[in-house]
Amino acid sequence: MTEKRTPPDGFVPACPVPIPDYPRVTLAHGGGGRLMHDLIERMFVELLDNELLGQRHDGAVVPPVPGSGRIAITTDSYVVSPLFFPGGDIGSMAVYGTVNDLSMCAAHPSALTLGLILEEGLEMELLWRIVQSIAAACRRAGVVIATGDTKVVEHGSCDGIYINTAGIGTVPDGLDPPSPRRVRPGDSIVLSGDLGRHGIAVMAARQGIRFDSPVRSDLAPLNGMVSALIERGIELHCLRDLTRGGLGSALNEIATAGITLTVDEALIPISEPVRGACEILGFDPLYVANEGRFIAIVPESAAEDCVRTIGSFEDGREARVVGRAIEGRPLVTMKSMIGPERVLDMLSGEQLPRIC
Amino acid sequence: MTEKRTPPDGFVPACPVPIPDYPRVTLAHGGGGRLMHDLIERMFVELLDNELLGQRHDGAVVPPVPGSGRIAITTDSYVVSPLFFPGGDIGSMAVYGTVNDLSMCAAHPSALTLGLILEEGLEMELLWRIVQSIAAACRRAGVVIATGDTKVVEHGSCDGIYINTAGIGTVPDGLDPPSPRRVRPGDSIVLSGDLGRHGIAVMAARQGIRFDSPVRSDLAPLNGMVSALIERGIELHCLRDLTRGGLGSALNEIATAGITLTVDEALIPISEPVRGACEILGFDPLYVANEGRFIAIVPESAAEDCVRTIGSFEDGREARVVGRAIEGRPLVTMKSMIGPERVLDMLSGEQLPRIC
Repeated sequence: MTEKRTPPDGFVPACPVPIPDYPRVTLAHGGGGRLMHDLIERMFVELLDNELLGQRHDGAVVPPVPGSGRIAITTDSYVVSPLFFPGGDIGSMAVYGTVNDLSMCAAHPSALTLGLILEEGLEMELLWRIVQSIAAACRRAGVVIATGDTKVVEHGSCDGIYINTAGIGTVPDGLDPPSPRRVRPGDSIVLSGDLGRHGIAVMAARQGIRFDSPVRSDLAPLNGMVSALIERGIELHCLRDLTRGGLGSALNEIATAGITLTVDEALIPISEPVRGACEILGFDPLYVANEGRFIAIVPESAAEDCVRTIGSFEDGREARVVGRAIEGRPLVTMKSMIGPERVLDMLSGEQLPRIC
Repeated sequence: MTEKRTPPDGFVPACPVPIPDYPRVTLAHGGGGRLMHDLIERMFVELLDNELLGQRHDGAVVPPVPGSGRIAITTDSYVVSPLFFPGGDIGSMAVYGTVNDLSMCAAHPSALTLGLILEEGLEMELLWRIVQSIAAACRRAGVVIATGDTKVVEHGSCDGIYINTAGIGTVPDGLDPPSPRRVRPGDSIVLSGDLGRHGIAVMAARQGIRFDSPVRSDLAPLNGMVSALIERGIELHCLRDLTRGGLGSALNEIATAGITLTVDEALIPISEPVRGACEILGFDPLYVANEGRFIAIVPESAAEDCVRTIGSFEDGREARVVGRAIEGRPLVTMKSMIGPERVLDMLSGEQLPRIC
């Protein structure tokens, strides 16, 4: 695990090790006894405490939110390698990734669960940094860790740390949740920003590749932007974040509901460093994972308002319409910059393992 | 992973491999492309389908339950080794464990999330068996898998399969959730059955130890019993399932709220095979993990009704009062069978790694 110890951006270099005599995680830290209790109290509660976690139970009871009867629920496990990369780390990813999945249901994220699988021998200081990052990400996204679970497996049985977060959020009453089935011919496809930064940043960190202009992950919480779209009253037919499989896979998944989606390659923003890295590494940026980008499919009449609303956020300043839905069979096509329209298929395998 | 392929009890030996040409999990099955899509559709949706999962989104929207405004939320990761053991497997455990955590909040479990971390090279047939077991456990406990996530890590980066489930449940309006803080001097401690079977069953399966009378895990869903207690109107001051750390740790955790708990060793049921195995292996059965046992701390006046209600279930037929809460500092004491009263402390480490 030695090569993964690059501290994430913005962290104070020295951080206290809260468990005296235990510089590394031992199997006993997952055993249900005093050591596990100490780890929970001195690290997790210390950094993450809130009213729900303070219930100190195996579960937490969340009070109802007036005007929100429906609950959205989601989960993701995070196995990203390396644990720290330019623009983020496994901790902030575990928070924003799940917040973003809730946002894509047009739900206001309220509480997350935190399931940690730790490898025996993991440096306690590294864990402290990751939990600090989780805490900072929760503050930024306006969510809390309601409850958690810690397991420790023998050295060699996991790669440092795997994190699962599940999340719940509330769907405002009267709001029709976005869904591929709601996409109609004529709808506009709004993309929130440039593509490919997360996958390339992680891959470069893993392989030790250095670019002239370093690529930072686009990792960011999307709930602020989605809330703004809901507040503006924009009819959100479909929302999808562009994680594993990128824009290409997301469009294909939506099209399977029974519609043709078409995008214009010239309109899709991809930064020069990402484009260059993709050429060198042999990746298609349309399929590379993002962690802070999404598409909103909205009625054409609402597209301009949607672009302006997303564009008012720092993470959405490159938002634009990149395509539309048309009558037709389930299919994604792209008007390419150098040739005729081509089919944008779903990839059969994957380009980049363990980018999330 | 070869030694783990013992089929769980009650499974049909032959089971179809749903993904032609892929007898084993590959990295591409977690890549977000067509192979992952196929795995989800042909295995997970095939076996687990329901209205929520059918939304085919990264999250699911759960409709409100009338009369239940509060939501309980919980999570657990499962890293049990071996994957199959007498009385259960990692799949059924992942369902019942989380259902039971919700039950301990006096919540009616409604939906679970399913996060899978798979090791490259895992036999597809083994995965199929585990997902079958998840489906069967969901049916028995009356819950559904609402949404899920699949990650694949390189061979050697996890031990076959790790599963995280998070769960939500509804707390009936007007019901005061059980909590250690609600335990009062004079309350009775009701134990739902005999102790130590899960930990010993898993350890024996792992080590290849054979007993004259085989020990089966007590793994079982507890929501039926808890619902019956709520329906009877029994005041549930505290509920706690006796998983990692067993009865000893659970009592200590509750006592920290500021009360003395005392139990009588002679009243605690432990089967002869478990007692014998603990003697040979050097374990204290009071600290060995269970997966289908809990304690209910209730007013003395409700204790008899509580015992009778739990006792009407097959998994609770040995229910009995084993102790009580008394005025005093945070402490657990036990009247032992062979000597004076002694302090039942929290273990510092653990007895049995990876039993859940």
